[in-house]
Amino acid sequence: MDNPESRHSIPAIPDTADRPADVVAPPAAALYLIPVGMSEAPYADVLPAGNLAIVRGIRHFIVENLRNARRFLKRCDPGADISAMTFHELNRHTDLSEVAGWLEPLRRGEPMGVMSDAGCPAVADPGAIAVAVAQREGLTVRPLVGPSSILMALMASGFNGQGFSFHGYLPVSDSDRGAAIHRLESESRRHDMTQIFIETPYRNDRMLRVLADTLSPTTMLCVAADITDPRRESIRTCSILRWRTMIAAGEVESLDKRPAIFLIYAGAGESVHQSKEKTPVGHRHKSSRRR
Amino acid sequence: MDNPESRHSIPAIPDTADRPADVVAPPAAALYLIPVGMSEAPYADVLPAGNLAIVRGIRHFIVENLRNARRFLKRCDPGADISAMTFHELNRHTDLSEVAGWLEPLRRGEPMGVMSDAGCPAVADPGAIAVAVAQREGLTVRPLVGPSSILMALMASGFNGQGFSFHGYLPVSDSDRGAAIHRLESESRRHDMTQIFIETPYRNDRMLRVLADTLSPTTMLCVAADITDPRRESIRTCSILRWRTMIAAGEVESLDKRPAIFLIYAGAGESVHQSKEKTPVGHRHKSSRRR
Repeated sequence: MDNPESRHSIPAIPDTADRPADVVAPPAAALYLIPVGMSEAPYADVLPAGNLAIVRGIRHFIVENLRNARRFLKRCDPGADISAMTFHELNRHTDLSEVAGWLEPLRRGEPMGVMSDAGCPAVADPGAIAVAVAQREGLTVRPLVGPSSILMALMASGFNGQGFSFHGYLPVSDSDRGAAIHRLESESRRHDMTQIFIETPYRNDRMLRVLADTLSPTTMLCVAADITDPRRESIRTCSILRWRTMIAAGEVESLDKRPAIFLIYAGAGESVHQSKEKTPVGHRHKSSRRR
Repeated sequence: MDNPESRHSIPAIPDTADRPADVVAPPAAALYLIPVGMSEAPYADVLPAGNLAIVRGIRHFIVENLRNARRFLKRCDPGADISAMTFHELNRHTDLSEVAGWLEPLRRGEPMGVMSDAGCPAVADPGAIAVAVAQREGLTVRPLVGPSSILMALMASGFNGQGFSFHGYLPVSDSDRGAAIHRLESESRRHDMTQIFIETPYRNDRMLRVLADTLSPTTMLCVAADITDPRRESIRTCSILRWRTMIAAGEVESLDKRPAIFLIYAGAGESVHQSKEKTPVGHRHKSSRRR
């Protein structure tokens, strides 16, 4: 359980981003999972410099959207020769039987990259199927560090980070959505777990009102919008009672068309302020050093 | 749903890390959630340069362990005057009634930082209570980007990233642990959700054997060890049947004392290779642009 950093002396911040593109050696053959920005934040604020060095050495990409991927690559490396690269689009229009064929360069020993339009690929975004194919064949998969609105919202909510669930989108119909919200609240209470979900941005304001009307007054709700955006980021945790008051007083800024994450916590009432270490299917345990 | 990057021209990679420490303006007053490295990887490979500029402007910290925090700060800024900083330790020995008092500098308008020993604070690590206090008082909370072994393991597993749960530690006793493993497998199957948990590093090898003995042959298991470590990272997804064969053949490298994440997926059998968009409490929906 000791910290490996204590056993090694590591020099401060070698800046791989400053190396010119033409001296970057290609990275080892692997399927690199490449996070991209999800706001107007400068890349230096949300992506490690080391990612950019890796990206510059990759010529074959699986991407959610071709245009957005090219823009990202040009911003990483204004001198990049996009025409020398190959791209496959992986999104809801893709014939998934084609994906296995796309990994041919990786099988030959060339590095490949997977990118979605924003944030981390394969988490609430396309990419998992390409990873699954690589894993099935024993090819190396390397996730890179980058922004995840789900993880960052959880960090900033103040809710239980020892147990949590992400559910994607809730149902759209009123009755199904109401039932889903009640189910999440009851699961949060019973298992002491933070419940996380998303909504399409133009329905965010409606979702907030429905949550305020549906949940118990003592349940805690965090709404995280525009995460990483230097000007617009807003992450607010309150009880449902307080949200109702703020909504009635017109004190809640609109979430319309803003990317947002919703988090519900009903676990043990005030325990979010009293305890930091709970597990739903276990018991208390000494905390791990390296998460 | 359009991508904001398309509406703005942003210069490539301004490198804030290269600014000398003495010209860095203090960041805005907020509780900054500061990820730290979790392996021997150079910081430039796992932390955005912008984080370091923020860290250099903070003088008041809430940390999991004082010694590790000082080492991190010295590595971020070798010229840092640690003696001019204040630190409070937030871990399982802390009297939690003291935490609210620690935020006094933030209430006065000074930025503060929260750090755990590795990875992201407040997710499977201490920190959430300090965040909860700040949120309760309406103080600004700003999560920074950094490595999370949970998120990175999920990305690299090839499992469902549209629905997942993290459970912390499973019970230690054989019978309770076995029951918990069966419960996770059945929840994964019923709700099509990836189930994620951790183990204390010296028990990892035993956990892997128990999982191989307990789960159904067709259930998929991903074991992710030493994430971000340039030499030792290993992320491997196989069916339980295949894990059993590899264990019997002695083909599985030891996980002893290595930080590891375990992920189980039993959702719709082969669907991990067939589909990328499923939600447990909803229905299929067009994918969001900005996760």
